[in-house]
Amino acid sequence: MSLVVMKFGGTSVGSIERIKNVAKIIAKKKDQGHDVVVTSSAMSGETDRLIGLLKEIDKDYDLREYDALVSTGESASCPLVAQALISMGYKAVSLSGIQIGLETDHAHSKARIMKIDGARIKKELADGKICIVAGFQGYNPVTNDIATLGRGGSDTSAVAIAAAIKADVCEIYTDVDGIYTGDPRIVRKAKKLDKISYDEMLELASLGAKVLQSRSVEFGMNYNVDIMVLSSLEDKPGTLVTKEDDEMEQVVVRGVASDKNQAKITIKSVPDRPGIAATIFSRLAKEAINVDVIIQNVSTEGNTDLSFTVSKTDLSRSLTVCRETAKEIGAKEVLADEDIAKVSIVGVGMRSHAGVAAKMFEVLAANSINIQMITTSEIKVSCVVDEKFAELAVRVLHEAFVED
Amino acid sequence: MSLVVMKFGGTSVGSIERIKNVAKIIAKKKDQGHDVVVTSSAMSGETDRLIGLLKEIDKDYDLREYDALVSTGESASCPLVAQALISMGYKAVSLSGIQIGLETDHAHSKARIMKIDGARIKKELADGKICIVAGFQGYNPVTNDIATLGRGGSDTSAVAIAAAIKADVCEIYTDVDGIYTGDPRIVRKAKKLDKISYDEMLELASLGAKVLQSRSVEFGMNYNVDIMVLSSLEDKPGTLVTKEDDEMEQVVVRGVASDKNQAKITIKSVPDRPGIAATIFSRLAKEAINVDVIIQNVSTEGNTDLSFTVSKTDLSRSLTVCRETAKEIGAKEVLADEDIAKVSIVGVGMRSHAGVAAKMFEVLAANSINIQMITTSEIKVSCVVDEKFAELAVRVLHEAFVED
Repeated sequence: MSLVVMKFGGTSVGSIERIKNVAKIIAKKKDQGHDVVVTSSAMSGETDRLIGLLKEIDKDYDLREYDALVSTGESASCPLVAQALISMGYKAVSLSGIQIGLETDHAHSKARIMKIDGARIKKELADGKICIVAGFQGYNPVTNDIATLGRGGSDTSAVAIAAAIKADVCEIYTDVDGIYTGDPRIVRKAKKLDKISYDEMLELASLGAKVLQSRSVEFGMNYNVDIMVLSSLEDKPGTLVTKEDDEMEQVVVRGVASDKNQAKITIKSVPDRPGIAATIFSRLAKEAINVDVIIQNVSTEGNTDLSFTVSKTDLSRSLTVCRETAKEIGAKEVLADEDIAKVSIVGVGMRSHAGVAAKMFEVLAANSINIQMITTSEIKVSCVVDEKFAELAVRVLHEAFVED
Repeated sequence: MSLVVMKFGGTSVGSIERIKNVAKIIAKKKDQGHDVVVTSSAMSGETDRLIGLLKEIDKDYDLREYDALVSTGESASCPLVAQALISMGYKAVSLSGIQIGLETDHAHSKARIMKIDGARIKKELADGKICIVAGFQGYNPVTNDIATLGRGGSDTSAVAIAAAIKADVCEIYTDVDGIYTGDPRIVRKAKKLDKISYDEMLELASLGAKVLQSRSVEFGMNYNVDIMVLSSLEDKPGTLVTKEDDEMEQVVVRGVASDKNQAKITIKSVPDRPGIAATIFSRLAKEAINVDVIIQNVSTEGNTDLSFTVSKTDLSRSLTVCRETAKEIGAKEVLADEDIAKVSIVGVGMRSHAGVAAKMFEVLAANSINIQMITTSEIKVSCVVDEKFAELAVRVLHEAFVED
């Protein structure tokens, strides 16, 4: 017998029929003799409906009231899941973020989890009950106000709850059946992975493989929670996200990913003085804009060109900041390019295998794909290329690194 | 400056347009210099939608989960009202039953209020904020579970909150503009009352004038809270429900009411022994069936006929109980009559005016309306008549007692 946390997204509980199906999956787990804690999202469409009502009043809404409003989505779906189990003859109880003592900071609409008091969950489990916990929501213990973790935050709360109650595994049920070596819609020969390390998953998640929210993986890594990604539609093995082992090091590239939600900004003729780059990037940081790949050309005549990427959604705000700053520091002009994509290979095996980056450049060159920018980490190499080459790049890299 | 509690029902917050209208009514009150606490119901239709989802799973649902589910209706409407005020430039904050410390007993779906901690509301008022409090919901401090007060319970929570924070008045906004001397749909000359005593209102509420929930009036009486019934559609004076004063005693009959939701049960040839009536009525009480008018005929040959009324909705359960009991005690048969109505006149002035009941019987007799049963209290006389005479009886009694 083990202690299992199961997480279901909005689509899985999107109708009463689906809720009954989810209840069967949960009941089966309980029948196998496990203690079961479930976290559920709002019924699909419900969160958008609530936000729609709020925006009808005011597009520039108050974040505290936003949290109080949207948290009702999960607070409504969980009693329905609990009822479905009770009607099947199981003991079940729905619990809100406040009830399980999920404490957050003050950042309404994107709060961070500070602490989870597992006492209530443990009491209910000891009574033989299945706990159905509202994902995505907690409360600020200082103000006693509800706070939500931001969209997708129910993955994070599931893993955090698993950590708090020392669950053996956190199962994330989704509409895909696991993590693949590449996007199956692009790469025909993409294979499902049995397991993947936290580090690799983090790189893939941030690179556009949107199966798991990055913060949930960080939580899993920090608290050593095994995360299993599974299908809620089919009963078959998923992918385990877990800590790195020796076997994993044998594989150089675990997966290939692409991200088209990128835009490149170039500031021309920036005076090459100490502190200039810091000025630009600290102003972007103040606007909460994440900068990804950065390259600075070799200086000529005391001036240099500075290029970096931001997400497409942040582009217009970034340009405003950059144009103001360019004027102040005496840079020549600011250019934007939205037609780019970032293509990446990820694998912990890179640490012990040389020449991986070189091989990547060769493969791209052999297919006439020009590399605009490069960035690397210990377990990842990313290249920015023309957007129209994104799928081709993924395919040839998958062939060269994964299929061989 | 005074402290005002304003209560809005589901119809008043049934759409974003109506929520904006309610916000204007609230803002006007605030502009007059008052401290304002609002309690709101769920948007009309929302509670039924949620219960519908639950019944789709199981008609025989769990009451704890029912409470967790339906309480989300108010938890969603209050942030929308708060946002509408914030967008108009006011400081406002939505609060749940847990947040204001509204403690209840264990009776899920029809919980009773045990205590309200007014601290959070007072703190927010001191910060200049308008508080938008979810009506109808509280929590059980022992289990830390959400409990609802039963349908219509938002009137009660409004008055209870007004009592807890010592508000000067509790304004109940409805789709009618006050309490009338008779149902205006039946009595053309019905007049709106400026004020009415708690006792009179309680009699009228329990007699089918469904403007205010009885429990809210009891709360008002027990804690001496002035309750003003007002229209949320038109800006005009309403009716004040308040403690009796000398002036009120001058009026013999405050209002005339009828109640068609009544059925008569007659148990024939009941052995006339001590304890027999107690047996019957204690068994009905155990089934939570409220018995209203009771008459027992003069005994003949050691047997008597026993008649009483129950609400139509309780009739079939009552008959089951009565037939079982009749068999045990050796009564002859059990008859039911659904075609009855109770017609009543109410007024605190009756205490000091003789002959009121006699005049009522004369008026009914003069109009050939046969009286089947009679019951009286200090401030009320009720007659059970054939249902088809209900409207006629109300009209002639209104003419005789109110219009003259």
